[in-house]
Amino acid sequence: MTITDPAHKSMDDIVALCKRRGFVFPASEIYGGLNGFWDYGPLGTALKNNIRDWWWKRTVECPPIGPDGEPVSIVGLDSSIIQNPKTWEASGHVGGFSDPMVDCTESKKRYRADQLHAAAVITSDEYQENHPLQLTMVWFAWLENDEVSRAQAYRKAEKFVKKNGGKFDPSQHASFMFLAGADPQEDVSIEDRAMLLGRIVGPDTDKPGTLTPPRDFNLMFETYVGAIRDEDAKAYLRPETAQGIFLNYLNVLNTMRVKMPFGIAQIGKSFRNEVTPRNFIFRSREFEQMEMEWFCAPEDSPKWYQFWKEERMNWWESLGISPENLRFRDHDEDELAHYSKMCVDVEYQYPFTAPGFGELEGVAHRGCFDLTQHQTHSKTKMEYFDQERQLRAKEAGKSKEEIDAVSKYIPNVIEPASGLTRAVLVLLCEAYTPDDSRPSKVFMKFKPRFAPIKAGVFPLVAKDGMPEAAQKLYLDLRERFAVQMDVKQNIGRRYARMDEAGTPFCVTIDGETLSDQTVTVRDRDSQGQQRINISQVETFLSEQIEQ
Amino acid sequence: MTITDPAHKSMDDIVALCKRRGFVFPASEIYGGLNGFWDYGPLGTALKNNIRDWWWKRTVECPPIGPDGEPVSIVGLDSSIIQNPKTWEASGHVGGFSDPMVDCTESKKRYRADQLHAAAVITSDEYQENHPLQLTMVWFAWLENDEVSRAQAYRKAEKFVKKNGGKFDPSQHASFMFLAGADPQEDVSIEDRAMLLGRIVGPDTDKPGTLTPPRDFNLMFETYVGAIRDEDAKAYLRPETAQGIFLNYLNVLNTMRVKMPFGIAQIGKSFRNEVTPRNFIFRSREFEQMEMEWFCAPEDSPKWYQFWKEERMNWWESLGISPENLRFRDHDEDELAHYSKMCVDVEYQYPFTAPGFGELEGVAHRGCFDLTQHQTHSKTKMEYFDQERQLRAKEAGKSKEEIDAVSKYIPNVIEPASGLTRAVLVLLCEAYTPDDSRPSKVFMKFKPRFAPIKAGVFPLVAKDGMPEAAQKLYLDLRERFAVQMDVKQNIGRRYARMDEAGTPFCVTIDGETLSDQTVTVRDRDSQGQQRINISQVETFLSEQIEQ
Repeated sequence: MTITDPAHKSMDDIVALCKRRGFVFPASEIYGGLNGFWDYGPLGTALKNNIRDWWWKRTVECPPIGPDGEPVSIVGLDSSIIQNPKTWEASGHVGGFSDPMVDCTESKKRYRADQLHAAAVITSDEYQENHPLQLTMVWFAWLENDEVSRAQAYRKAEKFVKKNGGKFDPSQHASFMFLAGADPQEDVSIEDRAMLLGRIVGPDTDKPGTLTPPRDFNLMFETYVGAIRDEDAKAYLRPETAQGIFLNYLNVLNTMRVKMPFGIAQIGKSFRNEVTPRNFIFRSREFEQMEMEWFCAPEDSPKWYQFWKEERMNWWESLGISPENLRFRDHDEDELAHYSKMCVDVEYQYPFTAPGFGELEGVAHRGCFDLTQHQTHSKTKMEYFDQERQLRAKEAGKSKEEIDAVSKYIPNVIEPASGLTRAVLVLLCEAYTPDDSRPSKVFMKFKPRFAPIKAGVFPLVAKDGMPEAAQKLYLDLRERFAVQMDVKQNIGRRYARMDEAGTPFCVTIDGETLSDQTVTVRDRDSQGQQRINISQVETFLSEQIEQ
Repeated sequence: MTITDPAHKSMDDIVALCKRRGFVFPASEIYGGLNGFWDYGPLGTALKNNIRDWWWKRTVECPPIGPDGEPVSIVGLDSSIIQNPKTWEASGHVGGFSDPMVDCTESKKRYRADQLHAAAVITSDEYQENHPLQLTMVWFAWLENDEVSRAQAYRKAEKFVKKNGGKFDPSQHASFMFLAGADPQEDVSIEDRAMLLGRIVGPDTDKPGTLTPPRDFNLMFETYVGAIRDEDAKAYLRPETAQGIFLNYLNVLNTMRVKMPFGIAQIGKSFRNEVTPRNFIFRSREFEQMEMEWFCAPEDSPKWYQFWKEERMNWWESLGISPENLRFRDHDEDELAHYSKMCVDVEYQYPFTAPGFGELEGVAHRGCFDLTQHQTHSKTKMEYFDQERQLRAKEAGKSKEEIDAVSKYIPNVIEPASGLTRAVLVLLCEAYTPDDSRPSKVFMKFKPRFAPIKAGVFPLVAKDGMPEAAQKLYLDLRERFAVQMDVKQNIGRRYARMDEAGTPFCVTIDGETLSDQTVTVRDRDSQGQQRINISQVETFLSEQIEQ
């Protein structure tokens, strides 16, 4: 029986297969790794490149046909990871791209404020009398999803009761954000906040009152450019590729003969100093993005928002992902970033969210926020002069003011932004198919186009001219497809390894091949075999892969 | 007349074309740029991707046939830019990857010590009597290749003579490294060094003695990982992709069924905080590398060194670079890095080095340096157990000690390491062909395989069904090739633009097309035209591009 329901796939099993077969390794593993960083092995690199090339082909080289029946116009870009730091002031990342953090003044440790929870001890009368702050409750904090930390907090609470009397009631618990008065729903005075903070015992200390109020911690990695390390030399690793596109909007407009509407697309690495990287390559500190900024006239933006929303879902389905594992989730108004007019996520049912869904791609209507910000900060005009609209307005007999009003504007932007490394994760989860009936107990059911290896080429045994015939076929095929030749071990083991690698076809040269020029082609999914002529293998593979 | 001699091509003209046609833009140009960082525009990105894909194909997917007639085995990898910092201690980059820098205590400026030069004033008797250090000479320093800085030093020297007497003799000059006693050839005491430094007037000050002795400045960009910024959290942006390969040597060995000899190849960004980035994208602070580490038995390493040296030259020639613009330069023994046994550069005749040559790729014999370093620092065994050699030794009747000696070893490494962004520069320089006879005055003579756009598709005029026929052809062709359709402007202008973009072919739909299904194909280099059937265009292009 094969299992395809995400809720029944285990992330631990997927991570183990990724390591075992060379898809993804922890970065610098021989040095104990580095939290939030991953290396892509031979198969993972091939899978990632296949997705990258498909996105690029369908976005830049063969972009979709637009709502008016004409192919849309999108050009590619590859901007620098390190840009002039003013970029990130204009974009709002220097000021706003942050998580609330809490320091412990005693242990010097730092925690994400929204991941701290605490349970209360109702203190004894004696304790209250002896403490000037009149602590009727003392809260013992731990870290979310950290059982060790929670158990420790409970032990400390019980020890406290033993010493000071009172009552520990674990059902009395609250979030740190609430206790610290940092919950935006609550209206707490500074005095009350100090009093509340004074009652909390941090996860790595024994006395109350050592945690600071939550403070914002910027997610951008900082570095210094040039020989001198001062404020002027400070720079950032980009937290998104999008701003590199906005920086080059005018360059593209001035050099590429594009006119509204048009897009600029980019694939590249981004970096976010996540406080808690998690879920394998889902949230890592170094990752790869595929972003496209679509520039259009403001009043056409709702039409294009709808268009790109649908197109992106089509694209994800073209990767071979089951439609039931994909869905849209429109952002509520109060969830939108300040610059965003509309936003929809394409979500995927990950094994670690199932039966729920998690973010895969965001399609955002960014209005004219970014270009306006860069116009202000760089003092460079970002206005577009729309000759066609001017002409139409003139023909319609509009007044000079009306003509000017429609022919000059800062374009609106629709942004489909997805993660290439997240797409790799989705295809790994989607393809992972436990199957007790086969020797490998699992196979990776990649759509052939994205499989790291398209075909294994095997001589049945390593003698009688079979290796030579296999090598000839291998050398022919490799010019067009990623193929692998494997000479040794029994054929069942070789099939099993290819099942785990997700290789859709195995071509075996056997005794008959040398007499009648036929080979067997074994299908990964059905495990069925067919005999075809060796000269037909290339055509067979190309038909299967192009599907 | 067309110009192909590199000495007659101007870098300024090439940089201007790159900007004008969308190959390369200065990064964050609207914010005044950022020294040493560049963005690749639509055409530059396509050119870079084409080179990237060709290297990957010829290295990973279809690696060359080895000296024994068998195809060699190379797998791909994509490791993280940020790795555990212990990586760079083991590799020697934390201690040794540095340039000697000099600070001016007065102006607070910093200079690369080996780029400072100085000319002397022989001071007057009066000056010498009045100065306790008995300065018989005062040296006025400037920066190498900086005419403004040199002129300023001369003016200061003359002013000094006017005020204090003495004699300025510009022919009396020396390098700062010599004056500061930092020239390794010289043996200078600490006292003498202080005295010598006391005689030098820095480029941005007026009095002697303000420059510090040369100090090493590390070229790695630093950052901090995680919420806390302390020494434990310090990390580096990789200065080379190679170490990511060594970190994963065991992972690949354990998962990919490779055996000696084999290679691991990687393409990705690297970062070096160059003190003086220069020559356009030749020496930038963020750049892309294509590196391959070839692991082999120690005694086979000379054979493989020769093999890769020749293969890499073949590869560069396959890009369409004239052999006379390429050469080998073997490193002298005293030029080798401490870990390197042999090293050869593939050099190119850049316009800014012509008639000399500059570095393009290094093929290095790294011995077992890197794996041994990582074995020591990570306490992880990097030894390879060579079953085949064990078997051969047994069959030859060797003793147990002899068998053990040959069957276990830390492999040697041959490393062909080149720059992808430097390859882009070489193709831009090589393709740039001034030609006064054509409207564009210049064309980019890329080999068709690497041209960003393979064909322009033009309706002769935007009426009479020609745009529709052109669009149909464009939609057919774009599935296989990067093509561009352009409807407007007169045909000469459209050809001129495609000449500057380096598009090898322009296919024009005219009045005849609609009656006899023929189109004209215009050749970029000869400017000649031929008529072919519209149904043959795809085959024609594929034959030309695959060459």
